[in-house]
Amino acid sequence: MAITSFNPPVRTLMGPGPSDVHPRVTGAMARPTIGHLDPAFVGMMDEVKTMLQYAFQTKNQLTIPVSAPGSAGMETTFQNLLERGDKAIVCQNGVFGGRMKEVVERCGATAIMVEDDWGKPVDPDKLEEALKANPDAKVVAFVHAETSTGVQSDARLLCEIARRFDCLTIVDAVTSLGGTPIRVDEWKIDAIYSGTQKCLSCTPGLSPVSFSDRAVDVIKARTHPVQSWFLDLNLVMGYWGSGQAKRAYHHTAPINSLYALHEALVLLQEEGLENAWARHEMNHRALRAGLEAMGLSFLVAEDYRLPQLNAVNIPEGVDEAAVRNKLLSDYSLEIGAGLGTLAGKVWRIGLMGHTSDMKNVMYCLGALEAVLMEMNAPIETGAITAAQQAVA
Amino acid sequence: MAITSFNPPVRTLMGPGPSDVHPRVTGAMARPTIGHLDPAFVGMMDEVKTMLQYAFQTKNQLTIPVSAPGSAGMETTFQNLLERGDKAIVCQNGVFGGRMKEVVERCGATAIMVEDDWGKPVDPDKLEEALKANPDAKVVAFVHAETSTGVQSDARLLCEIARRFDCLTIVDAVTSLGGTPIRVDEWKIDAIYSGTQKCLSCTPGLSPVSFSDRAVDVIKARTHPVQSWFLDLNLVMGYWGSGQAKRAYHHTAPINSLYALHEALVLLQEEGLENAWARHEMNHRALRAGLEAMGLSFLVAEDYRLPQLNAVNIPEGVDEAAVRNKLLSDYSLEIGAGLGTLAGKVWRIGLMGHTSDMKNVMYCLGALEAVLMEMNAPIETGAITAAQQAVA
Repeated sequence: MAITSFNPPVRTLMGPGPSDVHPRVTGAMARPTIGHLDPAFVGMMDEVKTMLQYAFQTKNQLTIPVSAPGSAGMETTFQNLLERGDKAIVCQNGVFGGRMKEVVERCGATAIMVEDDWGKPVDPDKLEEALKANPDAKVVAFVHAETSTGVQSDARLLCEIARRFDCLTIVDAVTSLGGTPIRVDEWKIDAIYSGTQKCLSCTPGLSPVSFSDRAVDVIKARTHPVQSWFLDLNLVMGYWGSGQAKRAYHHTAPINSLYALHEALVLLQEEGLENAWARHEMNHRALRAGLEAMGLSFLVAEDYRLPQLNAVNIPEGVDEAAVRNKLLSDYSLEIGAGLGTLAGKVWRIGLMGHTSDMKNVMYCLGALEAVLMEMNAPIETGAITAAQQAVA
Repeated sequence: MAITSFNPPVRTLMGPGPSDVHPRVTGAMARPTIGHLDPAFVGMMDEVKTMLQYAFQTKNQLTIPVSAPGSAGMETTFQNLLERGDKAIVCQNGVFGGRMKEVVERCGATAIMVEDDWGKPVDPDKLEEALKANPDAKVVAFVHAETSTGVQSDARLLCEIARRFDCLTIVDAVTSLGGTPIRVDEWKIDAIYSGTQKCLSCTPGLSPVSFSDRAVDVIKARTHPVQSWFLDLNLVMGYWGSGQAKRAYHHTAPINSLYALHEALVLLQEEGLENAWARHEMNHRALRAGLEAMGLSFLVAEDYRLPQLNAVNIPEGVDEAAVRNKLLSDYSLEIGAGLGTLAGKVWRIGLMGHTSDMKNVMYCLGALEAVLMEMNAPIETGAITAAQQAVA
């Protein structure tokens, strides 16, 4: 039987990503493909770099999108900065710190783990102790915004501590970029990676990264080549350039995906970064008020909560998967399940990028209330009114 | 100054890839993004696998698109099949065999090189000699269709020889898949990778791969983990599945790029693989007749020429870059430069996928004739008539 064209359902994406994509972004993606060395394309690449510098708040020359998803961005930072035998301190307070450990070890390096409970931020004192105990550590790595728990760590402070011990820093900003403040230069971050499918509200598949000059010097001075030819920044820099006119072919860039990122960054620039942060904060306030009015509670303490990713404790006796399935089938609304040790314990409700909109807050609260009522869960009514009042 | 939306020029892409993308493919790419674990998306993934099996002519369960361009597909095959200390025989007759060597060495393995002149196919006798001299070799790797030269090697014979010596085979089919016959099962290929932006006429950014059961057994029995977490097929298989119902999250798939690949494969299925091969062959015949009528010659001997990629010797005294620049600026027509040792010596004219069309053959011949005439190059007229007669 012949397979025919795929027409996806129209969803409201309120999980941990991908988020809803602005129609201008999918529209840009459908524009005619041109060559990866076409002068017109090279001009667009320069604009993408400039707008990524704005999003990351940096002047770093090496600020580019890696031609693969966020996990490849993670590998790009570790594989380029670490050599076999190096030591890295990895702070773990969720799934993605654990992935960092895996990546460090696959580089032939040692990972010294600094562990905190899932749902708690990284403890700066523990990091400092680990640095004192490991004066030969080369890198400190942590997740700014843990997508698995919805917790935010104090990136500025953690980077300051690492720098006192002369360590390079690697920061996972997959879920934070564009949704919550990141200031790469001010916080003196050495290497940072993100994804396009979260608060930038672009289609998934690319990973914006940025490296300080100090980090670039380390990459250029390596004694052994980077394990991955594809992710070797010494080669990638020849294509993405840093000042020089001529671009050398490395790999064929994902042309149309880069059109989409360009448009997503134009949208961010039009709105203004501070306004985008404020919008994420405001819609979070509304959602929080609604959920609390319903009688639901958050996994993460208020001070460390990410506005764009809300981990909500599942009320006792509720079949969490049945709720998600019903939201998807009856409301075409996607919310996220718990990941790792939090599987079955929380829902993750995303308000990222284009999804972070009062209409979606209302829709989600209304649908969730209806589904939970139908299942006889012990919840209160009045969520939508509470949400509206919270931002009135 | 604010950066505004990017509107690319409309090109005719007759270089070594990307090729022109069918409007149905870019249209599919613009469809609404859904989640990477959405049941609707998982259904689409299964269809992509089925249609890739058709394109590769295989029943291999592990037939999937890697979420990154062809060079990441290359790394996927080598990194998963090789461990530190292993030995691989790499046949080089162009740029991409050289890249294979780089990748082998970055895996901590040894590359035994079998070298042939650029523009010549891989010599089966030389491979056999190398296998006799290296009975401990684990892998034989070669490029089926060398994008840098336009030459085709005898993949069936090379695989047969490798198998006699009990070696796994890795085949680069970046430029061949969909344009010229590949029969993975019949030829007993163990690992093969391709790109989406060549004869599949999809946007760049994904790399279809396929692994025999024998290769999968080797991957499952590794003593050390794959260097790259992102490309580790033991993990990727959990997401792309092989029979089991439940998909485990690994990385966020490039959703919209996969819509595009799905549509490109539906188009291939509608046309029929044999018809696509025949179309590539026919349009090559027309182009060849036109170029020869002009007095131009080919780099590669007729028997080994790829129909989809034509390496044309640059006539004496002609400024080859000026010709390409003029074709791009005056005709919005992209043809490719020479790569590596062939830089400045050949043009590469692609007739891949949706680009492989009689209208494009005519357009290219007409534009090239006009530009060369204008530059007083020593060429004959009558190219278009010759092209038409060749396929009449």
